[in-house]
Amino acid sequence: MKLSAGMTDSNQRYGKFHVDISGATSAAHILKIIRNHDGVSRAELSRITGLSRSTISQHVDTLQKMGLVCESGTAKSTGGRKARLLQFKKDGGYVISIDLGATSLSVALCGLEAEPVAVDMRDFDVAASPCETINRAQRIASELMESAGVDQSQIRGVGMGVPGPIEFNSGTLVGPAILRGWNRYPIADALQSRFGCPAYVDNDANVMALGELWAGAGKGVEDFIFVKVGTGIGAGIVCGGQLYRGADGCAGDIGHVAVDYSDVMCACGNTGCLEALAAGAAIARRAERAAVEGTSQILAGLMKEHGQLTAKDIGLAALKGDPVSAEIIRDSGRLIGMVIAKAITFFNPSLVIIGGGVSKTGDLLLASIRESVYRRSLPLATRNLLVQSSTLDDSAGIIGAAVLVLEELFSPNRIAQVIADSS
Amino acid sequence: MKLSAGMTDSNQRYGKFHVDISGATSAAHILKIIRNHDGVSRAELSRITGLSRSTISQHVDTLQKMGLVCESGTAKSTGGRKARLLQFKKDGGYVISIDLGATSLSVALCGLEAEPVAVDMRDFDVAASPCETINRAQRIASELMESAGVDQSQIRGVGMGVPGPIEFNSGTLVGPAILRGWNRYPIADALQSRFGCPAYVDNDANVMALGELWAGAGKGVEDFIFVKVGTGIGAGIVCGGQLYRGADGCAGDIGHVAVDYSDVMCACGNTGCLEALAAGAAIARRAERAAVEGTSQILAGLMKEHGQLTAKDIGLAALKGDPVSAEIIRDSGRLIGMVIAKAITFFNPSLVIIGGGVSKTGDLLLASIRESVYRRSLPLATRNLLVQSSTLDDSAGIIGAAVLVLEELFSPNRIAQVIADSS
Repeated sequence: MKLSAGMTDSNQRYGKFHVDISGATSAAHILKIIRNHDGVSRAELSRITGLSRSTISQHVDTLQKMGLVCESGTAKSTGGRKARLLQFKKDGGYVISIDLGATSLSVALCGLEAEPVAVDMRDFDVAASPCETINRAQRIASELMESAGVDQSQIRGVGMGVPGPIEFNSGTLVGPAILRGWNRYPIADALQSRFGCPAYVDNDANVMALGELWAGAGKGVEDFIFVKVGTGIGAGIVCGGQLYRGADGCAGDIGHVAVDYSDVMCACGNTGCLEALAAGAAIARRAERAAVEGTSQILAGLMKEHGQLTAKDIGLAALKGDPVSAEIIRDSGRLIGMVIAKAITFFNPSLVIIGGGVSKTGDLLLASIRESVYRRSLPLATRNLLVQSSTLDDSAGIIGAAVLVLEELFSPNRIAQVIADSS
Repeated sequence: MKLSAGMTDSNQRYGKFHVDISGATSAAHILKIIRNHDGVSRAELSRITGLSRSTISQHVDTLQKMGLVCESGTAKSTGGRKARLLQFKKDGGYVISIDLGATSLSVALCGLEAEPVAVDMRDFDVAASPCETINRAQRIASELMESAGVDQSQIRGVGMGVPGPIEFNSGTLVGPAILRGWNRYPIADALQSRFGCPAYVDNDANVMALGELWAGAGKGVEDFIFVKVGTGIGAGIVCGGQLYRGADGCAGDIGHVAVDYSDVMCACGNTGCLEALAAGAAIARRAERAAVEGTSQILAGLMKEHGQLTAKDIGLAALKGDPVSAEIIRDSGRLIGMVIAKAITFFNPSLVIIGGGVSKTGDLLLASIRESVYRRSLPLATRNLLVQSSTLDDSAGIIGAAVLVLEELFSPNRIAQVIADSS
């Protein structure tokens, strides 16, 4: 194992004897200790980290200036002057989180522990332009803030998850299969100017993986894969307790892995992609054919009632015992499982979390995914493997989008910037 | 991004206010700075890290006691007493590295920068028992040490790469397809007792990836995949500048990804595995059939000459313009490229390094792998991707096996142990 990754990398990246980022890394580490403990003194911080008392004081000053740390009471006396205790300032601000799906828009006001304070979830037409979408989200956010009595100055940032490949550094969608009109649109810049605060954008599966890592089934797990099964299919990868984005930010885009040599066209332009064969639209398409051809009476009835079918309808029909619906879901699960099996053989995680709209069709999908995963993966790689459903469901995206902001807010880079600005 | 991964994880893992591992992490960080610089004073270390002078002195004492750091000269005077400079003690010991292939055994004596001082490479019959193999390696190592004038007390550890899935923590092969007689044999324990020093064992592709990271094409690259194409096929994954082993230590085992629905049996018991269809043995099998059936005169001639064919023969024949040999290599490269493309779509690395014996058959294999990779991967994931051959060739394994030992020798855990032993 390499030594002390965080500090080392920073030093390498910032030149030979550059002190600031190393200092900011220490400050970020101190913030983490304060966040994880219920009151800790400066002397204890010095003892835990080995940093000098003056360095600790300097970093605590910076964190207090950032409104992230406050003093709260004193330690039990052990003789001499009582030590003041430091605490994370949970009420030091709020973040706005936005989770854009192919058929829905969720906006939330979250606290500094990524906990949703107020949430708005609604159906949304993905054909809306980026500008319309961002304006709509901003109006919803304003309503949430107003009803919670939060004003603009308290907002630390806005985070957003979008369905498609994101170039994380620029906050831009690149060649999306679903949000076609959004290609190369500078989402992060637009959010920043519309909301008047720092903005961060990432792929929906990455954002949901962050949510699971922070507050869901992935909490405390070093290496896991989160798979979103919805209108599209994508994965978020957590490696060593951190979200892994890859060299260009598109790690985990398993929806466009070819699963067979079929000529089913995918929205991405290729044929035989997992997403084209197993995601929500593929499930609905097969079910509608079964309804029209009359092979499933239940599906025919539902189609007559709703005008069209969704993955949710097919899940309901399967629960009611419709064998055609059950088979459609099973086929989809098997294909998804085949691709996940390859990812498991390559990545050997300890956990796979299945989430997203289609994953809520019932236990049948999870069972089929598991069947495929255990049959196709390397036995050593599945010996201790857990494959389970998301425990956060609809909240994974909004919690994750809040975490996107918090990880930046608490990062050495941000702290280094504050140190530089004030010196 | 998470904050200061190294330190944070240590603190979490070792309980609330446990100081030792945090101290050892700092000491490991100091060692890294000393290793990376050409003479650095205690005052400079304090300035770079923010650690107090007394903490620095304490850690430097530990590192001196470990024989890893020494004083060497003084800094230019800036008035007052001249500061003594600290340096990494390059001659502070040696490590033995062993690279076991399916047809070869390499043993080397390396310095503390993983540089081979003396090397022995020979053909080897993989049917030998683990005990015989380890005895043989030990005898070779003794000869190398004797001729280099190095005695046992100078050996810091022994590292070994083996072709098969390794449970890293126990140093045991689990269900190997090639080294069948080695299943569950405690290799690390056997090495430790035979060599009388700490021993570490890992999968051959992981070890070669470490070699590339330390001294080859992967130097300074954060995220890359090393693919070994030899008798077997496997990959080593580097993530965030560190070797990634996965939850059970078997990450990167791409040789057993199913590439088609063919019924070609793999040594692992499954059918259609990449290794069964594209590795050295598959190439040789197809070539021997072409020789027997008379479709290639060159191959028939080589087979008559050697009694059998190897991947090297087919490479030679292809270079001489034999279209059958070229097609066999191209087919193999296409299949390998298909699997690498899936890994790229999932992992989005910035570099893929191709190494191992079969990769030396010529540029044709690399070209076919590249063709497949660029056709099948997500465009965003290959935009900045480099696919290249190993620059270390045969040395990747022995350098990597040395690095295996050095990473443990320089690790916070090892330093914590020394601190605990001396207090």
